[in-house]
Amino acid sequence: MITRRALLDGVAAAGGARAAIATLAALGGLEATPTRAAAPDLPRDGRRVLVVGGGIAGLVAALEMQRAGWSVRLLEAASQAGGRCMTLRGGDAVEEIGGPAQRIGWNASPHLYFNPGPARIPHHHRGILGYCRALGVPLEVLVNENRAALVDAPGGPVALRRVQADLRGVVAELAVKGLGAGGLGLPVTEADLARLRQALRFWGGLDAESRYRGNSRAGWAVGPDTGLAPPRPNVPLDPRVLMSGEVWLAASFAEGIDYQATMLQPVGGMDRIAAALALALSDTVVTGAEVQSLRRTEDGARVTWRATDGAVREEAAPRVLLALPAPVLARLDTDFSAERREALAGLHYSQAAKLAFLAERRFWEEDAAIYGGISWTGRDATQLWYPSHGFHAAKGVLVGAYIWDDDVAARFAALPPEARAVAMAADGDALHSGYAREVSAPVSVAWARMPRARGAWAEWTAAQRTREYPLLREPEGPYHFAGEYLSWLTGWQEGAVLSAWNALAGLAGPQR
Amino acid sequence: MITRRALLDGVAAAGGARAAIATLAALGGLEATPTRAAAPDLPRDGRRVLVVGGGIAGLVAALEMQRAGWSVRLLEAASQAGGRCMTLRGGDAVEEIGGPAQRIGWNASPHLYFNPGPARIPHHHRGILGYCRALGVPLEVLVNENRAALVDAPGGPVALRRVQADLRGVVAELAVKGLGAGGLGLPVTEADLARLRQALRFWGGLDAESRYRGNSRAGWAVGPDTGLAPPRPNVPLDPRVLMSGEVWLAASFAEGIDYQATMLQPVGGMDRIAAALALALSDTVVTGAEVQSLRRTEDGARVTWRATDGAVREEAAPRVLLALPAPVLARLDTDFSAERREALAGLHYSQAAKLAFLAERRFWEEDAAIYGGISWTGRDATQLWYPSHGFHAAKGVLVGAYIWDDDVAARFAALPPEARAVAMAADGDALHSGYAREVSAPVSVAWARMPRARGAWAEWTAAQRTREYPLLREPEGPYHFAGEYLSWLTGWQEGAVLSAWNALAGLAGPQR
Repeated sequence: MITRRALLDGVAAAGGARAAIATLAALGGLEATPTRAAAPDLPRDGRRVLVVGGGIAGLVAALEMQRAGWSVRLLEAASQAGGRCMTLRGGDAVEEIGGPAQRIGWNASPHLYFNPGPARIPHHHRGILGYCRALGVPLEVLVNENRAALVDAPGGPVALRRVQADLRGVVAELAVKGLGAGGLGLPVTEADLARLRQALRFWGGLDAESRYRGNSRAGWAVGPDTGLAPPRPNVPLDPRVLMSGEVWLAASFAEGIDYQATMLQPVGGMDRIAAALALALSDTVVTGAEVQSLRRTEDGARVTWRATDGAVREEAAPRVLLALPAPVLARLDTDFSAERREALAGLHYSQAAKLAFLAERRFWEEDAAIYGGISWTGRDATQLWYPSHGFHAAKGVLVGAYIWDDDVAARFAALPPEARAVAMAADGDALHSGYAREVSAPVSVAWARMPRARGAWAEWTAAQRTREYPLLREPEGPYHFAGEYLSWLTGWQEGAVLSAWNALAGLAGPQR
Repeated sequence: MITRRALLDGVAAAGGARAAIATLAALGGLEATPTRAAAPDLPRDGRRVLVVGGGIAGLVAALEMQRAGWSVRLLEAASQAGGRCMTLRGGDAVEEIGGPAQRIGWNASPHLYFNPGPARIPHHHRGILGYCRALGVPLEVLVNENRAALVDAPGGPVALRRVQADLRGVVAELAVKGLGAGGLGLPVTEADLARLRQALRFWGGLDAESRYRGNSRAGWAVGPDTGLAPPRPNVPLDPRVLMSGEVWLAASFAEGIDYQATMLQPVGGMDRIAAALALALSDTVVTGAEVQSLRRTEDGARVTWRATDGAVREEAAPRVLLALPAPVLARLDTDFSAERREALAGLHYSQAAKLAFLAERRFWEEDAAIYGGISWTGRDATQLWYPSHGFHAAKGVLVGAYIWDDDVAARFAALPPEARAVAMAADGDALHSGYAREVSAPVSVAWARMPRARGAWAEWTAAQRTREYPLLREPEGPYHFAGEYLSWLTGWQEGAVLSAWNALAGLAGPQR
């Protein structure tokens, strides 16, 4: 076990850490409370709004309006609410534009599910987590970075722990040299420098000569066993591995603010959030209502939609909240301004795609001690996600590909479902030998081909953020807008929530 | 969202990562399967063994013997099996040597529990996880490192994400300078150097001039909200914070091989493992059996023990497996060799201590978006642990102190329970303002004062590992030995398992 005293002694020289804490004043400052936007207060004047689109943005907006006693109805084209925040289970079917339908041949078991859309919630996404709390959606930890997961390094797959420890070691070794070269650019004493060198040695797992020669952080070549001999750590990887971009990427992604621990997931699937919102809204949500056109009227707008029975209906309202993805909105028959239509059509959406397999055996746990997390490959599959739930169960659902590069995703989307599965099984085999024989019952979602999304998430250019972003956020006559694309957190449920709150502020303004 | 292509482009120059992967050959090598010791095959000859001590080592050994059809009985002094692998819940009582008894005033709720002993399982501890799997003990993720947790840096508490991002940035900046100083000590081309500088900039979150000027990895000064303006990242902490040993420690502990993600915990408390083992052993385990003395006999050994009814009993067996902590074994009335008694008495055990509070409100989640993980303080409390389960529930149990420095622990242990709670509440208040008013119903365990442990875990010196470790592992006549102290994983349940397997190999040898 770690010895606290030894560590502190190791880090700080005589008079070290404790003394430093006691004598240095007000350097860090108290951490600000996590930024916490909130739903705006709505006037309780019973105003009427029609919401189009039952993804997170539309559902959240409708719930807040309902809470304020407004008269609200929500039209959702699909048979259930949630939009891209979808969970697939045994028996479900997916149909992309141009088909064919994929029916999922998995058992009905609470832990056998696949989130083809959002699949993780950062702990600081306070909006969406607030709704989980208020609506009683149970949450559990999602493992985003697992040191046992694999990286497809030059020469073959290695455990992420080895990549992480070796990079850290090599960087610390270079940093000690940089420190010697007067690198800090701060007035420091010789004693401070000695202390910093010591700290870098500790941080990087270096030896007494400030060299990285391997470390148990990189895992064991010979692990602790029943014998008398001590365990032996792995030796460092060939330093040419450092020339692989894949390696640096895998070693850094979980540093990103939206990828850091703790990450969360609803127990049982991401759609539990939308389901809880829809349940709270009850009759307010009309599913199977496919909107056809929007037209302004004297005192609002008229929405034409087709119901599940094929009948075309019309509904007028003083205000309409359009909570549809931009590519869907762009293709709708509307009387929006030319500027808006152009801006909507010009906004690029990621073509991201995912594929899931059923495994009859949780080979990643049994054979490789991988419990959750993500493996990285330079092949098309890009990422493999292991479930953070159902540990040690008989079966498991494995995300066999999470592709977010548009070119790769386009290549993937162009294949029929069976060909995608064959290709992704081969990609997985390069990480886990025998993988292709372990996986079955694939299902894939290429978001660009999903009829009610036509893309995964908005990807604004810097120029568009300056010109089109303010325009698209603004209401236009009776029309108001919400959706992840109208936020700085595109592709996240939190972005949808924030955009809904912004739209509510507009809807709460004086009625004409 | 992250753009894979952009990242790879950013990391590797023209011809970069993909090309590197394609052209470099066999650098990494396949990762070895996780080291996997196993229980030895036992002869199915019905031999008889008496096991003393129902912690993990004794339980595992007894289970394997039972599976092999041996005649086994296990004597456990406490009213239930588990030893230090204990879970405390509402209504339980703890009594240290010299008292007073502490009775726990929490509600009976599945998520309100406290593991005063082991509280996490590394994913590569295949022995203990194997028993969890075989016995159907449900597992869930334990968050060991949470970037939202706090570090008591000079100047006040800061979120770990800020410490991590800033250290990474400063170290990367120094490393770029070290690289310039020819630091890599490898034959590299100018193009390679440029690529490595680019990789270091990406890895450290540096700007185009290879300077660290803050980064969203450190969190937001102004987070993404409903407004038009983009979020703004935190500025770097005062670099003098780097002189704090606490900061470097907090930023590195989760790199350790036994502290890396994924870490696991049994759903409902660590004692679920021992309970499952005891259930499988059923009548084999005699609880409330306090062993008094051990004596060799003509054909084995005689164990004298006192039962719960006060009666003193004797039991003879050809072989006895002693699975007690070294300090307890050292105080027992035995006829061990002088060398063994001396070695047992000379082995230092950590004095580690823990304290838990009930909180009527999960203020760490509500106020600070902390879901699981560990905050660090330079005060006596040392670490605060937030529960990785029961998210958003009404109440929570918080580990208000995990002290492993012997001097601090001795100071803590000397206080009566109420005084410990007052002191730890004040320590917590320095991390979470208002903490002292939020917490109540404390319970603490100072392991040095627990009568059936007399310490938390063995701490071998290097010299003892050479001389006394081989001696203590060896059987002595009818006596065989197991326990975490007889492994390279002291303080871990896995160490207890490995020691049990080693003892079984000895017990499986030819009978006299």
